Amino acid sequence: MRDDTPIGYQGVPGAYSEQALLANYPDADRRPSRTLPELFSTLISGDIVRALVPIENSYAGSVDEAYDLMLANSVSIVAEHIHPVEHALLATPGASLTTIKRVFSHPQALAQTSEYLLAHHLQATPYYDTAGAAEMVAENEDSSCAAVASRLAADYYGLAVLADNIQTARDNSTRFVLLCAGGWSPALRTESAFPGKTALAFSVEHHPGALVQALESFAQRGVNLLRLASRPSRQRPWEYVFFAEAAGYEHEPRVHEALGELSRLGIWFRVLGSYKAAHA
Amino acid sequence: MRDDTPIGYQGVPGAYSEQALLANYPDADRRPSRTLPELFSTLISGDIVRALVPIENSYAGSVDEAYDLMLANSVSIVAEHIHPVEHALLATPGASLTTIKRVFSHPQALAQTSEYLLAHHLQATPYYDTAGAAEMVAENEDSSCAAVASRLAADYYGLAVLADNIQTARDNSTRFVLLCAGGWSPALRTESAFPGKTALAFSVEHHPGALVQALESFAQRGVNLLRLASRPSRQRPWEYVFFAEAAGYEHEPRVHEALGELSRLGIWFRVLGSYKAAHA
Repeated sequence: MRDDTPIGYQGVPGAYSEQALLANYPDADRRPSRTLPELFSTLISGDIVRALVPIENSYAGSVDEAYDLMLANSVSIVAEHIHPVEHALLATPGASLTTIKRVFSHPQALAQTSEYLLAHHLQATPYYDTAGAAEMVAENEDSSCAAVASRLAADYYGLAVLADNIQTARDNSTRFVLLCAGGWSPALRTESAFPGKTALAFSVEHHPGALVQALESFAQRGVNLLRLASRPSRQRPWEYVFFAEAAGYEHEPRVHEALGELSRLGIWFRVLGSYKAAHA
Repeated sequence: MRDDTPIGYQGVPGAYSEQALLANYPDADRRPSRTLPELFSTLISGDIVRALVPIENSYAGSVDEAYDLMLANSVSIVAEHIHPVEHALLATPGASLTTIKRVFSHPQALAQTSEYLLAHHLQATPYYDTAGAAEMVAENEDSSCAAVASRLAADYYGLAVLADNIQTARDNSTRFVLLCAGGWSPALRTESAFPGKTALAFSVEHHPGALVQALESFAQRGVNLLRLASRPSRQRPWEYVFFAEAAGYEHEPRVHEALGELSRLGIWFRVLGSYKAAHA
């Protein structure tokens, strides 16, 4: 991947996704998309070569929309990154903790900074987006308003950072995957001395033991499942697709054999990617 | 349960949760709570006797916050109901499809009615809440604005129903559980001629086969798992609690034995409830 490869992210400039992109691919040409569906369309159309997509937060859990879009589109995971969520309190220059009354941000960011906001008697006001709240605060030039957003958003919108790292939980991180267009194939294999992961989606019949049978394909070969999540199948109500992450690269014999066993059992599955595991 | 028992729901009056409550408990005294955490607090404090809580939508999937709150609080599931989501287009009296330009609603309701809105050249505008959008449209008395919300919201806020059942998917339903305060015990057992379910939360160690071992306790006894979902454990990042729904009442021998097997294996679990299974 060339250093100036266009990589897409979801959000307005200054979004946490852009901060994660900047941290992991500092020389990439960063391209915002307003929504996750738009980001996937841009990737499929070839306007961008990669997309950095949040799939899970250590506190809030799965980003369901990202899983649904990975399943609905021909994309593959080529890398994984974990990035800490560090919330900052941003306001117009000249504003201070004494002038501020209302704080705007995404409800999840407000919830994650609620102890700080309560301690400083600030009124939490939901807004659609963290960086969008920063943009709005900058445009209104009202010293009674502030936003909870990334430090990067302060740079973009000319805001002052009144406080940094105001989140309650110290271990608040988001896991991102780097996607390329096209289904996964062994040609996308990466060789690395570091431990790998294989991500897959699968579905099972609605009868006793069907899910166990699928999971046993991995357990019997000593393959640890690092994660198992489910989403509505969208084919029939109250049926599910499972997303699993198995420890090990797809080409490691025990992982390869486990996938072969799924095929033999007639279980539908799709490998989403096989890549170096990120460390928190 | 007396007919005028106070039952809580989340949302402003006219919310889909209130519509589901009215459909299933027509004589209950319905009490709104602004947020799900507030609804759980009200239940724990004894101000309400039951709470009707959405846990899953056939299209959008799990209501993660509801699962987190069930795990964090001493509550039990005593009943389950499935209620169809029927979106209506509401506007001030006198407005029509030709005067309306913008339509306000929760992003999920806008997504579920996007085909209708596109076909009628209406601009979808995100709002925090469906019934809240109806309230706002009623207050503004602007014939260029409409809301996507329940028919019930039209009654509350004096709005006209310009179109009903405008959702794209015909099988869009939400699953609700009726909760009481206090942990589950066999005293809460219900006897019914209809098939039952047992809902439980459990956690497993992070080693190969640990999850399979837990699920095998059910599979080996022919107990079908109707649903398996996971949430962050909140104890340690990137560890999970699983939520399972097993077919059968807790007192049916094979379910009872499966739970006994989990105990013998030293697997932490908590029965959330055992109740008649709802039908879509």
